[in-house]
Amino acid sequence: MMEPKIISGNATAKEIKAEIAATVQKRKEAGLKVPHLAAVLVGNDGGSEAYVSYKVKDCAEVGFESTLVRKESNISESELLQVVQDLNDNPEIDGFIVQLPLPDHIDESKVLLAIDPTKDVDGFHPSNVGRMALGLETFKPATPLGIVELLKRNDINVSGKHCVIIGRSNIVGSPLSILLSQNADGANATVTLCHSRTKNLEEITNQADVLIAAIGKPGYVTESMVKEGAVVVDVGTTRVPDASKKSGFGLKGDVLFDEVSPKCSAITPVPGGVGPMTRVALLLNTLRAVS
Amino acid sequence: MMEPKIISGNATAKEIKAEIAATVQKRKEAGLKVPHLAAVLVGNDGGSEAYVSYKVKDCAEVGFESTLVRKESNISESELLQVVQDLNDNPEIDGFIVQLPLPDHIDESKVLLAIDPTKDVDGFHPSNVGRMALGLETFKPATPLGIVELLKRNDINVSGKHCVIIGRSNIVGSPLSILLSQNADGANATVTLCHSRTKNLEEITNQADVLIAAIGKPGYVTESMVKEGAVVVDVGTTRVPDASKKSGFGLKGDVLFDEVSPKCSAITPVPGGVGPMTRVALLLNTLRAVS
Repeated sequence: MMEPKIISGNATAKEIKAEIAATVQKRKEAGLKVPHLAAVLVGNDGGSEAYVSYKVKDCAEVGFESTLVRKESNISESELLQVVQDLNDNPEIDGFIVQLPLPDHIDESKVLLAIDPTKDVDGFHPSNVGRMALGLETFKPATPLGIVELLKRNDINVSGKHCVIIGRSNIVGSPLSILLSQNADGANATVTLCHSRTKNLEEITNQADVLIAAIGKPGYVTESMVKEGAVVVDVGTTRVPDASKKSGFGLKGDVLFDEVSPKCSAITPVPGGVGPMTRVALLLNTLRAVS
Repeated sequence: MMEPKIISGNATAKEIKAEIAATVQKRKEAGLKVPHLAAVLVGNDGGSEAYVSYKVKDCAEVGFESTLVRKESNISESELLQVVQDLNDNPEIDGFIVQLPLPDHIDESKVLLAIDPTKDVDGFHPSNVGRMALGLETFKPATPLGIVELLKRNDINVSGKHCVIIGRSNIVGSPLSILLSQNADGANATVTLCHSRTKNLEEITNQADVLIAAIGKPGYVTESMVKEGAVVVDVGTTRVPDASKKSGFGLKGDVLFDEVSPKCSAITPVPGGVGPMTRVALLLNTLRAVS
């Protein structure tokens, strides 16, 4: 039993936002373009509305310009592709995202492929995913980028350590496994990627110096799955009803925090851990887009 | 101690080549285009000469057309880029490769990026690497593709098994770790990617149900690193002087075969294991390019 360090994504994100704001200020003083992020929101999904409003708010906070492009949920695929094309062609817009999920009648993959890779600040376009996998400079997907930054800035050196990731999604687990195993600053870890087909999961997670849970199942990671002294990163942010909250819901992580945290040397909370780092990673990518 | 199954890449490659030849024959009969592979060879490196000549020979064997484009080692980067452009534009050529390494005065990455991704049968272009990482249809790099095929066709089901890969190169270890962990036929493994910075390597390799050595250090994997009953895949093909061979050299794998094989349930030899599968994978990609 120990008193774990609580890794505050809020505090680290605040620090990075201050740095970005200072860079934007210097750009303004030098007469350089202010970064401009656009977000495309289709329909009225509650989660998507919230995510996009955070993005607009974050831009304001660091001095970026932002544009919200709202479309009705009955927009046709070809109309949406035209929206993407217009943003590709608009020199004012440095980077943009299309908020997922999209309505069922629209092929998400087609839309993501239509985004100009040089403006793809979500880092979802195959050519950016490939550049990342090859270790070339590019936009990295926000959550993996945010986690790497969070560990680096909290002096958690993963080099030579065994990082075990639970969850192989294209937006978190899989790209994070690639990034952490590369020969790069903040990386060089030995990485094991686990998922729904993994047998002996508990045996493997118990070897993790750094355990990263990215499965979206609240409370999935229990005390018996974690090695004494491990660092635990909780990527889960499942919305659960919570009458005590103004919004009517709260966020639950993939880790059973109360029973797991006493075994950890350090752990990220939910909320206030990976979430704010994902948000700030989008700002880092947008700054990269204009640089 | 057991009598391990020797996984013959030669036999499996032969089987696949027969299938490809039959497909080409059917294409001919249907009046469809015969696949046409081009290879660009710059300079006179002995290894590169050999690899390219194998590729030409393999094409002939399955009924593909092939073109060898030879250039002197003093070709300029812009001249080589023009060669690539001409192949991109040539409708006769379905796919092509630029044999690596290139002379020092040429930026390899620039040349690979210039290849039309739809003709990139080596699967090295970032947009193909990204498509692979996202699980989309694409050209997969030859050695990882060859290994996945070899395991599948020899009834070694990796689903839920722990695959440990030693070596994180962009052409073998890293893409193989991506492929084996995906939710796909012949995959679904729990994958650990180890490399030069890995601490406790032996502890990790001893957990491998399937151990894949791709480091290029002859005899690196010894008996003590392998679990009883493991499947071992040896990607190493280091050229070592051998007076008994006509060519004056032999190939050494990364695995100390004589002491490791008695512990294995199955093992690939060197030569005759992964090597022929890498060659046949290029043919599979070329067939995909024309289809």
